[in-house]
Amino acid sequence: MILHNHLDINNLGHLTIGGIDAVDLAKEYGTPAYILDEDVIRQNCRLYHKTLTRHFGAAAFPLFASKALCFTEIYRIAAEEKIGIDCVSAGELYTARRANFPMERVYFHGNNKTDEDIKLALDFKVGCFVVDNEDELVALDNSARTRGIRQKILLRITPDVDPHTHQKIATGKIDSKFGTAIATGQALQIVKKAIDLPNIDLAGIHAHIGSQIFDESPFITAAEVMLDFIAEIHQKLSYTIRELNLGGGFAVRYIESDPVVDIEKNIAAIASSIDRICAERGIAKPKIMFEPGRSLVAAAGITLYTVGAVKEITGFKNYISVDGGMTDNPRYALYQSKYTALIANRGSQPKDYTATIAGRCCESGDLIAEDILIQKPQRGDILAVLVTGAYNYSMASNYNRIPRPPIVMLKDGKSRIVVKRESLEDLVRLDV
Amino acid sequence: MILHNHLDINNLGHLTIGGIDAVDLAKEYGTPAYILDEDVIRQNCRLYHKTLTRHFGAAAFPLFASKALCFTEIYRIAAEEKIGIDCVSAGELYTARRANFPMERVYFHGNNKTDEDIKLALDFKVGCFVVDNEDELVALDNSARTRGIRQKILLRITPDVDPHTHQKIATGKIDSKFGTAIATGQALQIVKKAIDLPNIDLAGIHAHIGSQIFDESPFITAAEVMLDFIAEIHQKLSYTIRELNLGGGFAVRYIESDPVVDIEKNIAAIASSIDRICAERGIAKPKIMFEPGRSLVAAAGITLYTVGAVKEITGFKNYISVDGGMTDNPRYALYQSKYTALIANRGSQPKDYTATIAGRCCESGDLIAEDILIQKPQRGDILAVLVTGAYNYSMASNYNRIPRPPIVMLKDGKSRIVVKRESLEDLVRLDV
Repeated sequence: MILHNHLDINNLGHLTIGGIDAVDLAKEYGTPAYILDEDVIRQNCRLYHKTLTRHFGAAAFPLFASKALCFTEIYRIAAEEKIGIDCVSAGELYTARRANFPMERVYFHGNNKTDEDIKLALDFKVGCFVVDNEDELVALDNSARTRGIRQKILLRITPDVDPHTHQKIATGKIDSKFGTAIATGQALQIVKKAIDLPNIDLAGIHAHIGSQIFDESPFITAAEVMLDFIAEIHQKLSYTIRELNLGGGFAVRYIESDPVVDIEKNIAAIASSIDRICAERGIAKPKIMFEPGRSLVAAAGITLYTVGAVKEITGFKNYISVDGGMTDNPRYALYQSKYTALIANRGSQPKDYTATIAGRCCESGDLIAEDILIQKPQRGDILAVLVTGAYNYSMASNYNRIPRPPIVMLKDGKSRIVVKRESLEDLVRLDV
Repeated sequence: MILHNHLDINNLGHLTIGGIDAVDLAKEYGTPAYILDEDVIRQNCRLYHKTLTRHFGAAAFPLFASKALCFTEIYRIAAEEKIGIDCVSAGELYTARRANFPMERVYFHGNNKTDEDIKLALDFKVGCFVVDNEDELVALDNSARTRGIRQKILLRITPDVDPHTHQKIATGKIDSKFGTAIATGQALQIVKKAIDLPNIDLAGIHAHIGSQIFDESPFITAAEVMLDFIAEIHQKLSYTIRELNLGGGFAVRYIESDPVVDIEKNIAAIASSIDRICAERGIAKPKIMFEPGRSLVAAAGITLYTVGAVKEITGFKNYISVDGGMTDNPRYALYQSKYTALIANRGSQPKDYTATIAGRCCESGDLIAEDILIQKPQRGDILAVLVTGAYNYSMASNYNRIPRPPIVMLKDGKSRIVVKRESLEDLVRLDV
């Protein structure tokens, strides 16, 4: 096992994922390529589903935060696993529709839904809007009135909780672009407005405090703030909030020194705190929802590259250049994220070579990992970066006019393409 | 004039670009949209061409570093202006070919050219390879031998010059992933190897020290280091380097406090230093090349957005959300780049409202500019971000499954689409 149970080394010394030889996959599909283990995704869906229903009742289910990884087939899997999805754009809604995803289980997010977005979501009959702000609330009420419907919503609320994560992915602080802050009194105002609007059904409130959170305590703090707010709403407005969505943010293990995240234990701890807080405040326990994104799909994925130039700058640094980089994985460039990498065809050899994994873009910041220990490679070797299932394909670009890799899905020892490789012709097809 | 000559406010109080009303453009083409003033691009091409031939002779011409902005029509313009281009990938070469760009004026860059890249470039008969490393040199010699040709190359050399710019775009330091360092002695070794290889014609050497450099002095330092190296090659290997390519990196004015960059004056200063250094070292002056990217196209472009939510977090921050963001302009997320923005339909009103321009992605780091002064907008207003011609479209992604904007080109008071808007259907076309 390497980091996660489905990753191992076989008797040829090759990396395996879901029991399949990664070097064979590189040969069959070419590089760079994203590989996803469907069994891992399904196991994670079931783990969340089981844990949430155990603690929060039969009606609870996880919502997959699909900005982490969005393509048609992943929504088919989500539909089969009977979980919900969190969509943030017309593009994600369109993709869900294409997968025949049941729209009543779609929560539609976003800090700036356009009028066209709202129209499309209503056309598609999405189950719930997560309304970010007053502009959107008014626009949605107007659109719903025109259609003669009453739209179920949650309100995005800022609890002002510090999740102890990277600033760019901390989303619940008071000065965040998302939602409405409790501390300024504005949250109570928007709740009141939502209650008063005739074509809005205010079902609940939503908070998302950030990403890559290893510890349950920020979630408990957020839950406490939100439950206090629910009690305040009940007291001041005589209105019962039926649903509390605590967002996503559970961390994933990227490198050996990251702790193993025990989702069942974390959610159990959060659930018991919620029970205690509800009892203390004398409020009915709302339906509790979570929106795991990274946590469902990150570990399921690896990226395979072919090694090109191996460069040793005497006395300074070693570089291993690969045939991808920030175009398929911009997370180092954006957040200096850490990854585990290995030479897939030399998995049994010692990791005793210190090197920086560089991409092929004409940009110094185009790195995947800096000064890590890895097997010493040769040109033509296969380099694997682990735990790339989230925020890699979904954030990929065509910078330097580099085509995006395919996604290869593994299930029951077999592989299939679920997103095709971009061709050079694809790159110019919108050029006049 | 706002920052640059082609940007102004008309008598309706609207922003104009190339004399065309930006609000009309937003109506005609929708938002978000990239707008490019072709006249500005052509003026910049001519300015570089004229300045380089004046100082370095009739054979000198600029090479457009097309990673800054690559699509078919821009190569047609470059071809008409009789400049060269710097391509960094098979995708850029393919696009140039589609534009019928004369391949002898293509310089093929990249720190990690794959065997397929080398094959494609030789198939296309590119004029010059800029060889990054020994692996590539050997692979290219082998491929050239198979074809019975002698391929002209430059060698990418690291001069170890600090360009005083952002670390992610400083590319000429000794521990850079690019090229071979003079200081370690490895550059002389690779030069010797290139001279000895039968199917390689070593024409010259290349250095690129970084981007967004306001001052000519780092270029002069780099020129001195490179000319010293040319003298060393002549002395130790009795070989004459015929061409010195000093890369790109001239800065562009993004905000009012940025100085105006006088390209003619800078290049004149560099040219006179080169004359002096060559005389002092007793070496023949090589052909001098430059590779402007940003400098040719950045100022020509603006991005038009529609304002959505305007959010005031009492006592903390104001947010103006737009219908684009890090998906069409990731430069703030990557480098905290500064931009000038204004409300295009309120250009005559005072910029007295402090706000952060937020994109529509579900990510806190999805901002365009933070705490800038701007006209106070309403939902539905048109917000323009200036100087977005470089590293915006070329770095765009579909994060959150948001489609990429079109590029609208302006010439002689008329507008036309040169890259079509992505549709929702485009987003799923590679999904199985």
